[in-house]
Formats: sequence, structure tokens, C-alpha cells
Amino acid sequence: MTDARAKPRRRLVVALGGNALLRRGEPLTADVQRAHAGEAMEAVANLAHEYDVVLTHGNGPQVGLLALQSSAYTDVPPYPLDVLGAESEGMIGYVLEQELRNRLPGRNAVTVLTQVVVDRGDPAFTAPTKPIGPVYTEEQARLLERERGWAVAADGEHFRRVVASPEPLRIVELAAIRLLVDAGAIVVCTGGGGIPVTVDGAGALRGVEAVIDKDLAAELLARSLEADALVMLTDVAAVMRGWGTPQPRPIERATPPELRGMQFANGSMGPKVEAACRFVERTGGVAAIGALADASLILAGAAGTTVTPDAAA
Amino acid sequence: MTDARAKPRRRLVVALGGNALLRRGEPLTADVQRAHAGEAMEAVANLAHEYDVVLTHGNGPQVGLLALQSSAYTDVPPYPLDVLGAESEGMIGYVLEQELRNRLPGRNAVTVLTQVVVDRGDPAFTAPTKPIGPVYTEEQARLLERERGWAVAADGEHFRRVVASPEPLRIVELAAIRLLVDAGAIVVCTGGGGIPVTVDGAGALRGVEAVIDKDLAAELLARSLEADALVMLTDVAAVMRGWGTPQPRPIERATPPELRGMQFANGSMGPKVEAACRFVERTGGVAAIGALADASLILAGAAGTTVTPDAAA
Repeated sequence: MTDARAKPRRRLVVALGGNALLRRGEPLTADVQRAHAGEAMEAVANLAHEYDVVLTHGNGPQVGLLALQSSAYTDVPPYPLDVLGAESEGMIGYVLEQELRNRLPGRNAVTVLTQVVVDRGDPAFTAPTKPIGPVYTEEQARLLERERGWAVAADGEHFRRVVASPEPLRIVELAAIRLLVDAGAIVVCTGGGGIPVTVDGAGALRGVEAVIDKDLAAELLARSLEADALVMLTDVAAVMRGWGTPQPRPIERATPPELRGMQFANGSMGPKVEAACRFVERTGGVAAIGALADASLILAGAAGTTVTPDAAA
Repeated sequence: MTDARAKPRRRLVVALGGNALLRRGEPLTADVQRAHAGEAMEAVANLAHEYDVVLTHGNGPQVGLLALQSSAYTDVPPYPLDVLGAESEGMIGYVLEQELRNRLPGRNAVTVLTQVVVDRGDPAFTAPTKPIGPVYTEEQARLLERERGWAVAADGEHFRRVVASPEPLRIVELAAIRLLVDAGAIVVCTGGGGIPVTVDGAGALRGVEAVIDKDLAAELLARSLEADALVMLTDVAAVMRGWGTPQPRPIERATPPELRGMQFANGSMGPKVEAACRFVERTGGVAAIGALADASLILAGAAGTTVTPDAAA
């Protein structure tokens, strides 16, 4: 399964936002996700011609749907978030891997189920903040709080379940992922930020009710694999200076200190900028954020926001 | 991730029956499956001390539940069987891999999402026979036949959906599985017989509405990996001569011609015997069928049914 190559290629970890499989307001049907996955894998396949690609992805809408399905069928109690996360890694990984293989004949693409270790003492567990699933009335929310032990919180006029979003610390299946990547495979892994697990006193892995931020998990993956670059592809063209003002301007290049001095009102941009800064600070590598459709341009520095260790780089 | 070893170890493909995660009549809760998975992985971990183990498993009850959950939530159409199969590979693989890792510190266990190619021209597609999901009245069944394009068939007094169960031909992710196995990892793969896909005229993989028999897929996996033995673990102690008669007697050893001359009334034993015969006939290796609890005894020839190329072996 090795590809004969003249010289080592640069290694990229590519993180796909939720919009790779679904646009806002669309129904979460298998056909809709398949169609978007095809478009997204067209962009990723183009990158794979030039780079060694490791692919990761979000799972928010899919886990939300699996949780609703699990709750709608009342003969068995709903499955916990680690199990639903594992289901979503199977489902999304399958569609992405198949669409990739169909665009890259002769290349190996493979999906590795991925657990990510978090710390039971992470403050996120005492103050869960990440909303998941549907909206409820306060009465419904309080009932679920009592019956299922959920944490719930106000979200505008409604209530939603909130879960912990702890820091990703270690990728359990890293050795297997590394082996496959080194052999030239395009590996789909760490989907949805990975299945969250803790390590108990005896060293055993235990699933936990949590959701790991997928961009922070992608940064851990990229750092663990000594990737040259971390590329986060989403539905906005670049990180914006003055987001929410009348004249937001795209940032073409920035260093971590410059980005850390700014505010990002967009809830989903915050973790991306944090992941980019961490990767650049900790490895001296390059991170980039931009639109999926611009993937190749972003790698060439001609679109998106590129984050580098110093401004002159 | 390589294990330093004095000599090459025998390679086993171990196929777990549905009872590895669920006993008849039990509710399909996450906790019930977790508890059974722990027991099953105790047996498999013992094998992994002596052998290179590749693990595969059924998914019948789990896919049935996912289909019911998918149908119970009516905002999006139910997902097709290839997607549900992928979900079940993620869910079951996660639980098995985690329980294995917790029993084998220092060893790598990894779950590889697996697609298995079938032939669009397989006669199973024109005459589907494999019942899946819940029972319906004839009226309900005829409605589903019209609305969803399902094939339905009488099953006793009720009706059920029936789907094609085509022959497994090729494991798409074989190269990745082989690489991991050769490096000493315990690989969980080809769950539920694999995600069924066909290859279209342009060479592209397409998911199909089918269910591949997990024992026949395990045989394909064992043959493709040049395994020394194929071991099918279930809830009966051995293949029985005179099954259904007043005095069934366990078969300790048999050759494929001997087994092919017998009838097996038990619906689930037929595919196991067929898989065992194929593996022995095509590779000259050994196959075994028996109870999960007897796993180590079966490998020692002291329990279960062992199938060998000739009676003297």
C-alpha cells in the first residue's frame, strides 16, 4: 500500500467544518450529506495529489440527529454521547472515505475509529457549556434534568442540554493512524473531535458524556503526527478583522500574538483561531483557515487566513 | 507499535456471534451490550496472548435498532442499510476495542471501518430473503412495499422486510487491515459482514441496500489475510449431528465433505458451517465453531467442532 514517491511530501491535517456535509436549514438526509460530501472530497482529493492528507471532520448535526432518533424510539434508554459519537464516526467516515476513494483510484483511504483522552478533572465537567440537541421549554428541560441527570441551560428564550467540552489530551489510536499515514494512506480519523474517554485509576479507558471541540482535537492530531500544516476548512473565506462591524476585512496573514489580541464574535471561529495559534506556537508550523472551495488556493497562500510563527515568514 | 516476538505467531480471524453483545430477549441498552462485550473480550484477550487476532462481529440486533430509531424520528427519511451498517461498525467497534484495550495494556487495538464489495448481478438482489427489522401486518407491509420500495415477505403469521444477502467478494480496506495486523495490532473490522458496496461501470464504490452474512465475510477476511485459522464463536457448544432429533450429538472433528453431507436445521448454523468448509477447502487451514466461553479450549482442540482438510489431520 505504499506509494512510490520521489521525495517526502508535506503532511497536512485537514479539518472539515459541519458545512462539509450540511448547509444551514437543510434536512439531514443521507442524500443531502452524500452530495455535499462529494463536493468536499473533490477539494480534499485535489490536496491529496500534492500532500499527505489526514482528514478529520465535525459531527454536530449528525450526533444531534442520532440523539433525537435514539430518544424517539422509547423501548431502550437513549445511548450516551460516547456511543453516539462512535456511531457518527462510522457513518460520516464511511461517506467521506467512499467519496475520496472514488476520486483517487489507486490510493488507499481508510477510516480509523478514534478515541480521545480527556481529564476527568477538567473544569468543563463542573461547568458544562456546550449546547447540543433540540430546544426545550423550561418545564421540559427541568424534567430532563431530573430524569436523565442532564445539565440544561437557557439559550435565548428556550432551554437546551449542555455538556462538557473538555480539552483533548491524547489520541488513543495514534500509533495505528501514524502507521497508515506513513504508508501513504489517506486516513479519516478523530471525527467529531474523537470519542471522549477518561483514564481511570487502573489505567482503563471509560467513555464520558462530553463533546470535544473538533478543531482543538485536529490541532492535537496535527501536532501528534508532526504535520507540516493544519488546515481548517469552513464556510467563511477567512478570519475577519472587525467581525460584526459594518466593514469586516479578511486577515490574509497573522501571527499567534496578533490573533490572540483580537476578539472573534463568531462562536465557531473562536476555537479555530485558538487551534491555529496553538499549532503554530507549539510546532513552528503553519495553520490556515478558509473556505472549503478555496482549499488549494489557501495552501498556496492565495486565499484564507494563514497563521505563521512570525510576520516575515 | 510492533511487538518484538521470538517467532511468528499463528494468525486467527475470530468471528463473534450476536450473543457476544446481546442475549435473546434482553433489551438492547448500551449497558447490557457493554457488559457482554466485556465478557467476550475477556475470552478474546486470552487468545491474543497466544495468537495474532483479527476480530469481526455480527450487527443484526444493532442495525435493527438503528433502523427502528431512524424510522421513529420522522423529520428525515430513514437512512439506507449501508449507512446504518457504518453506524453499527462504529458503535460496536468502539465498545469491543475499548474493552480489549482495557484487558491488554501495551497492545494496540484498532477499529477499521470496512466496506465489502458484492456483485450487483448477485441473484440475491432479485430474490431477497434475509428478514430484518420488526414484524408488520400484511397491510402495513404492503404499504411499506409501495412507499419505500421494500421487498416484504411472510414470516409465520406476520410480514417482515427482506433484503438481499449477496456473496462477499472483496474487502475494500484490506491493505490497511493487513498493514496493521502485520505490525502487531489487534484489528476489529468487517463488522456485520462489512458495509455492502458495489462497483459501478466507472469503478466507483456505491453503497447498496443489503446485508452480508458475517460468517461468510469472516471467511473472506481470513482467506484474504492468509490466516491460519477461522474461529466462529457463538452460543452453542459445537456443531450438532442430528440437530432437532431427540439425541443431538456434538461433532468434535469433521472434514468439509462430511459436513456438506449433513443438514443443519438451525438457521444460524448453516452459514457458519458453509464458512468453515469454504475456508478449509480453499486454504487448507483449520476452522472451528463453538461457544465463546470455550474459546481457548476450542483452539486447543478440546471443545467445539474443528474442521480440517482431512480426517487424519
